[in-house]
Amino acid sequence: MSFDAEAFCAGNFTDQSVEAGLCSTIEAVDDMANGLNVFFLLFAASFVFMMQSGFAMLCAGSIRQKNVKNIMLKNILDSCGGALGFWSLGYAFAYGGQNPEVKSFIGNEGFFLANIDSGSELISWFFQFAMAATASTIVAGTVAERCKMEAYLCYSYFLTAFVYPVVVHSVWSQSGFLSAFNANPAFGCGMHDFAGSGVIHMTGGVTALVAAKILGPRIGRFYDRDGNEILEPKAFPPHSVALQVLGTFILWIGWYGFNPGSTLYINTAAYGDVTGLAAVNTTIAAASGCVSAMFTDMFMYRRKTGETAYDLTMVMNGALTGLVSITAGCAVMAPWAAFVTGIMGGWVYIFYSNLIIRFKIDDAVDAIPVHLGGGSWGVIALGLFAEPSATAKAFGDHGHYGWFYEWGQGSGDGNLLAAQICGCLWVTGWVCATMIPFLLLVNMLGWFRVDTIEEEVGLDISHHKGAAYDLSGPDESTVEKFDLHRSHHKLDVPKDIEQDAPAKKETSSEAGYDAFVASVGVSADDVKKGE
Amino acid sequence: MSFDAEAFCAGNFTDQSVEAGLCSTIEAVDDMANGLNVFFLLFAASFVFMMQSGFAMLCAGSIRQKNVKNIMLKNILDSCGGALGFWSLGYAFAYGGQNPEVKSFIGNEGFFLANIDSGSELISWFFQFAMAATASTIVAGTVAERCKMEAYLCYSYFLTAFVYPVVVHSVWSQSGFLSAFNANPAFGCGMHDFAGSGVIHMTGGVTALVAAKILGPRIGRFYDRDGNEILEPKAFPPHSVALQVLGTFILWIGWYGFNPGSTLYINTAAYGDVTGLAAVNTTIAAASGCVSAMFTDMFMYRRKTGETAYDLTMVMNGALTGLVSITAGCAVMAPWAAFVTGIMGGWVYIFYSNLIIRFKIDDAVDAIPVHLGGGSWGVIALGLFAEPSATAKAFGDHGHYGWFYEWGQGSGDGNLLAAQICGCLWVTGWVCATMIPFLLLVNMLGWFRVDTIEEEVGLDISHHKGAAYDLSGPDESTVEKFDLHRSHHKLDVPKDIEQDAPAKKETSSEAGYDAFVASVGVSADDVKKGE
Amino acid sequence: MSFDAEAFCAGNFTDQSVEAGLCSTIEAVDDMANGLNVFFLLFAASFVFMMQSGFAMLCAGSIRQKNVKNIMLKNILDSCGGALGFWSLGYAFAYGGQNPEVKSFIGNEGFFLANIDSGSELISWFFQFAMAATASTIVAGTVAERCKMEAYLCYSYFLTAFVYPVVVHSVWSQSGFLSAFNANPAFGCGMHDFAGSGVIHMTGGVTALVAAKILGPRIGRFYDRDGNEILEPKAFPPHSVALQVLGTFILWIGWYGFNPGSTLYINTAAYGDVTGLAAVNTTIAAASGCVSAMFTDMFMYRRKTGETAYDLTMVMNGALTGLVSITAGCAVMAPWAAFVTGIMGGWVYIFYSNLIIRFKIDDAVDAIPVHLGGGSWGVIALGLFAEPSATAKAFGDHGHYGWFYEWGQGSGDGNLLAAQICGCLWVTGWVCATMIPFLLLVNMLGWFRVDTIEEEVGLDISHHKGAAYDLSGPDESTVEKFDLHRSHHKLDVPKDIEQDAPAKKETSSEAGYDAFVASVGVSADDVKKGE
Repeated sequence: MSFDAEAFCAGNFTDQSVEAGLCSTIEAVDDMANGLNVFFLLFAASFVFMMQSGFAMLCAGSIRQKNVKNIMLKNILDSCGGALGFWSLGYAFAYGGQNPEVKSFIGNEGFFLANIDSGSELISWFFQFAMAATASTIVAGTVAERCKMEAYLCYSYFLTAFVYPVVVHSVWSQSGFLSAFNANPAFGCGMHDFAGSGVIHMTGGVTALVAAKILGPRIGRFYDRDGNEILEPKAFPPHSVALQVLGTFILWIGWYGFNPGSTLYINTAAYGDVTGLAAVNTTIAAASGCVSAMFTDMFMYRRKTGETAYDLTMVMNGALTGLVSITAGCAVMAPWAAFVTGIMGGWVYIFYSNLIIRFKIDDAVDAIPVHLGGGSWGVIALGLFAEPSATAKAFGDHGHYGWFYEWGQGSGDGNLLAAQICGCLWVTGWVCATMIPFLLLVNMLGWFRVDTIEEEVGLDISHHKGAAYDLSGPDESTVEKFDLHRSHHKLDVPKDIEQDAPAKKETSSEAGYDAFVASVGVSADDVKKGE
Repeated sequence: MSFDAEAFCAGNFTDQSVEAGLCSTIEAVDDMANGLNVFFLLFAASFVFMMQSGFAMLCAGSIRQKNVKNIMLKNILDSCGGALGFWSLGYAFAYGGQNPEVKSFIGNEGFFLANIDSGSELISWFFQFAMAATASTIVAGTVAERCKMEAYLCYSYFLTAFVYPVVVHSVWSQSGFLSAFNANPAFGCGMHDFAGSGVIHMTGGVTALVAAKILGPRIGRFYDRDGNEILEPKAFPPHSVALQVLGTFILWIGWYGFNPGSTLYINTAAYGDVTGLAAVNTTIAAASGCVSAMFTDMFMYRRKTGETAYDLTMVMNGALTGLVSITAGCAVMAPWAAFVTGIMGGWVYIFYSNLIIRFKIDDAVDAIPVHLGGGSWGVIALGLFAEPSATAKAFGDHGHYGWFYEWGQGSGDGNLLAAQICGCLWVTGWVCATMIPFLLLVNMLGWFRVDTIEEEVGLDISHHKGAAYDLSGPDESTVEKFDLHRSHHKLDVPKDIEQDAPAKKETSSEAGYDAFVASVGVSADDVKKGE
Repeated sequence: MSFDAEAFCAGNFTDQSVEAGLCSTIEAVDDMANGLNVFFLLFAASFVFMMQSGFAMLCAGSIRQKNVKNIMLKNILDSCGGALGFWSLGYAFAYGGQNPEVKSFIGNEGFFLANIDSGSELISWFFQFAMAATASTIVAGTVAERCKMEAYLCYSYFLTAFVYPVVVHSVWSQSGFLSAFNANPAFGCGMHDFAGSGVIHMTGGVTALVAAKILGPRIGRFYDRDGNEILEPKAFPPHSVALQVLGTFILWIGWYGFNPGSTLYINTAAYGDVTGLAAVNTTIAAASGCVSAMFTDMFMYRRKTGETAYDLTMVMNGALTGLVSITAGCAVMAPWAAFVTGIMGGWVYIFYSNLIIRFKIDDAVDAIPVHLGGGSWGVIALGLFAEPSATAKAFGDHGHYGWFYEWGQGSGDGNLLAAQICGCLWVTGWVCATMIPFLLLVNMLGWFRVDTIEEEVGLDISHHKGAAYDLSGPDESTVEKFDLHRSHHKLDVPKDIEQDAPAKKETSSEAGYDAFVASVGVSADDVKKGE
């Protein structure tokens, strides 16, 4: 319909005329759409922010107990540094003064959110901040157990305030040189990255790779403390699988803000189509990444050892790689393509995970395989599988689709795939170009890596006033005193109750004691031996 | 108002006429309603999906440490298997080609979501998948600590891809033979199950019961390893109450997606009424189930032993049973009835929990009492307490209400109650009819239960490459070396600072050491003795 | 626009006239707005309810292992008691029969939600309940490790059913004597407390202070068990930093329901502006509170000891105090003012934390500094920094703004600041006036504090049937038997596989064993020594 509301309502009507009523209604509808969209982003951003806790739990669970406080602290600081960095500079660099008619390197308006009071822009900041914090937190896990707090703070601010915003500007701002939203996009379509496989996960992943390389592996991983190579790389067991799984689940949940939320608006059925497809594909890719990694690993392990074991690490990182892989294409692929992307994602994870070990790069939580591996595959997968009608809904009808569809139609049009490949190269190049010198400098200054003895004793004791857990219970003598007290107290109990279940009672108090003994982690017999 | 927008807008108007404006506005409103409803289900489904992590934490916390990895793995795989099973077959079986004029056994359209691109249908798949995953995950806890991974994968796919969809079809599809949404519903009203006390929780609960019976109890629970009966059934203490409580809270939170979300639409005030009532009743039933179970157990325990103890298990499972119980009727009961339902729910839990012990059925997390007990009570409770006006809003005005209201009006109309009872019988019968042969077969093939020695050593070591926790800290000599290093380093500190707090400093380093020692779970004295 | 829809639609139109169409559309828009607002509060309340689990995790993590079950139980009961207390009396006292033309002390309609069936009111109850539960749960942490369950239940019901509702009535009901929503508000503007720095956090904080004072410190904190003063107050180490961090993150996440959700409506762009600003300021204040507390503490610690340590407690409580501080003013301040409020919040935390130690008040989780300190500062901060246009959007244009802005304009208008100060005094006075006598009575009756021996052995053993954790793995002999079994089994493996990786296999089984040994918390050598 070609009704032009603005022109119509510019007319002069009497107050109670049907025209005035219509215009007032049109206004109310617009008004509500605005509120609804703010709400949508509030929801999405809250879920994305939730991922911060997921990363914290996953990272903390994956490392040794002696560094738990340290990694937790870094994860909280990430959120804080991200907020301050993105408020002060990052958001302005990323989106400031965008204009589809122009291409620019960096934005330049809205520092400190000054003079911004529209709800849509404020909530958009909140959503974009949550995304930025994700990018920066990816690195925390990789460099865990050996990176100085000072270096981490520097890098974290540098990334969210400058490196990452430039990437965002290039791909998501209307003025970006690779942006699909520019009036004159590169390759006629621009790079497509719906929710950030490239923009967020590759940025984080490349940074993690650079940092891991410069920082070097943890003592005892590939080399012993005297620098001699170890025959078989040593894997340090995660200190708590429960935290890892919790973190993985929280991340998966948060992805439902990340991917469907990246639609940014929800006030029409078309936005609903985009959002719904994103939710479905996110689910399918996570599930297929998980089973692909798990079964592949199981078969490989059986081939090697003759035993069947299901590896929880594969399950978790497979699902996460599936999620990272679908992040770019969630809104433009058919569900079957999401399935293929996820299956491949599981393999990509296993491949990268082995690759970095071969190159003696030590990633404490395998964030590089998940985010760099999955992220780059996701960007490419979109170039292969972008379905025409879904792509048109999400990015506008520019006529360039996934290479698989073009090829199916006998067309040789590889523009979208080319744009995707360029995107990968650009993100990798830019992050390397900024991060390598930056981290080399930090390293040269001696700010990057903790002392050997600090690393060995763990960062919690050396930098954070002690260990993360104290699971000790009451001491033995107190428990004995209490048991004595309780049996005295028993005499006051009315006779008839007493006769009911005297045996049970001993048991209960005994059980309490045994449970306590068990809780301090030695068998009851050991303790009694000590008496 | 009887204005027919479609007929009106079929007219021929000039572009800028008020009629054209009206039609364009009507379209915008419809469009927004569509987007809003997609958003609503995205929110609800994300919360329901969150429950997966709640189940994982609750189950893991409830069992022994030696099987934590195994149960976590099963819980993640549930989500994945559910996604793939429901994508490939389940959704099509449940809702495919539904038609209120017809009654059918099973749906037959939409396999692999092929050719589905409307946001409302895609997001509806996402919501229904999250529900399906819940149904399947219920069983994981019951069979924990002794069930083979292979059996679990088989059962899990079979349930989400076939057994559960048939139940859904019968009750929620318009073509279901018990459906309230059929043009000609059974008993004139059909079975009412707003969010799935019967469809989801009973399906999961009956499966759990069948599985627990066929699988047999864990070694040492009712019989020792030689098969001799133990005098008093042995309860295995949960390995982490913290995880249990976290899981319980997450489940409760997720229920706010489960119940209010089952309204499915939110674009009118009437849907808002249904949603609001569901949220209120969910809260009240959870709270009353919790206090009912806790105080009842406390009094029973005091009567038996003379001691007052508040049992956390009762608190958690009482709340959960309250939640399961209100799931059917949350949108059609008055708050006072939700309170009654919850109080009864607490008792139902205690009753079933004792019952299965009497029958020597071993449920590692008491999922049968919670989901089967609570679920069946919830379906019946709706038949008793469905309030006329709320029922009309949620299910249409068919003239059949809760037996309590009918009876209050002197009517003998027991149609709704009869439909509810039929529903319970149907779900129980169908699940038994499919699951008993299936699991017997799996059992016969030797796929169901792990070897005795594997069970005793725990599934983590026997199937998943080692234990779930490694809480060991740095070794003693490293800590000593570090303390030495730090005291040397102290000499570099400017004199005036040194004088400020020398005592404090010792303490701090000492505290770090003690905390570490405590963290490895032996008392400091023990360790020093060892020197 | 001055179109009056009600008057217009009262007219008499033919069914298919454009007027009828317009009126039907206006109705649909209103209808949708209603549904949308219900959805918004459902989202917000669910997030606020999520904070219950955050408090539970934070409190449990902060205390000693021997009281974990107890604090968890209290936290769940809080939610339940809050639900029942607020359903029966609290909501009616708080909001019942409100009328902007009248001022009253307490509400008196809507007990048990009787006769309430509108979705907006039902969901509003849900949101308000979640807020009430927050207020009551604040106290749980402070009195942890020594408070009887009975006292806790009494206090918890008294607070949510009476004390807190009176505060709510005075500030948020239209009939409140300090309310900004009264037709004739105190000071011409009333007290401004957008999301409850005063109403919720100060109420909880003052109660915590009173309770901590009457209950006395834990044994060994300031005095030994014979009542002799200890030279240096002893801090009890948190039993699990992982739970603390998880709790902190969940609270932060929940705050995005708490603060932006307090807009209550989202059906216009203006509401969107308020909501968006609240989300942004919440983020910035949390981040700045965190870095302010952390760095301040770090510098103070370095000044004292010469060592650099980053204290995770400061990071967490700093962020939380930032969040509490911005709760009042989140919707009426500019982002820079939120930054200032957060920075100050970090200092307020450190100041109060030291202050209560000086007064020998024992707060097991530092809830008093966070909620009373942060809450009162937040109420005052609004009086200083309320920005004119944002204030007008959130509270109406009454002409009184933050003192900073008034002063900047050369105006001496201190009305808003005066109202804020009165609010602080009123909340403090009212809570003291009711809670001091109540808790003194409870104490006199001997219901408040557990016995010394119960406290020493811990509440889990003395009141809850045993310890919260049992991390023991399978016993040694079982593991040996399993290893033997596995090596026998190895003989069945096809030869060619066997030859592939025999070495690897030993390792794997050995690793499982070592991980198990580590998991029970003693070094492998110790165990082997014991053989």
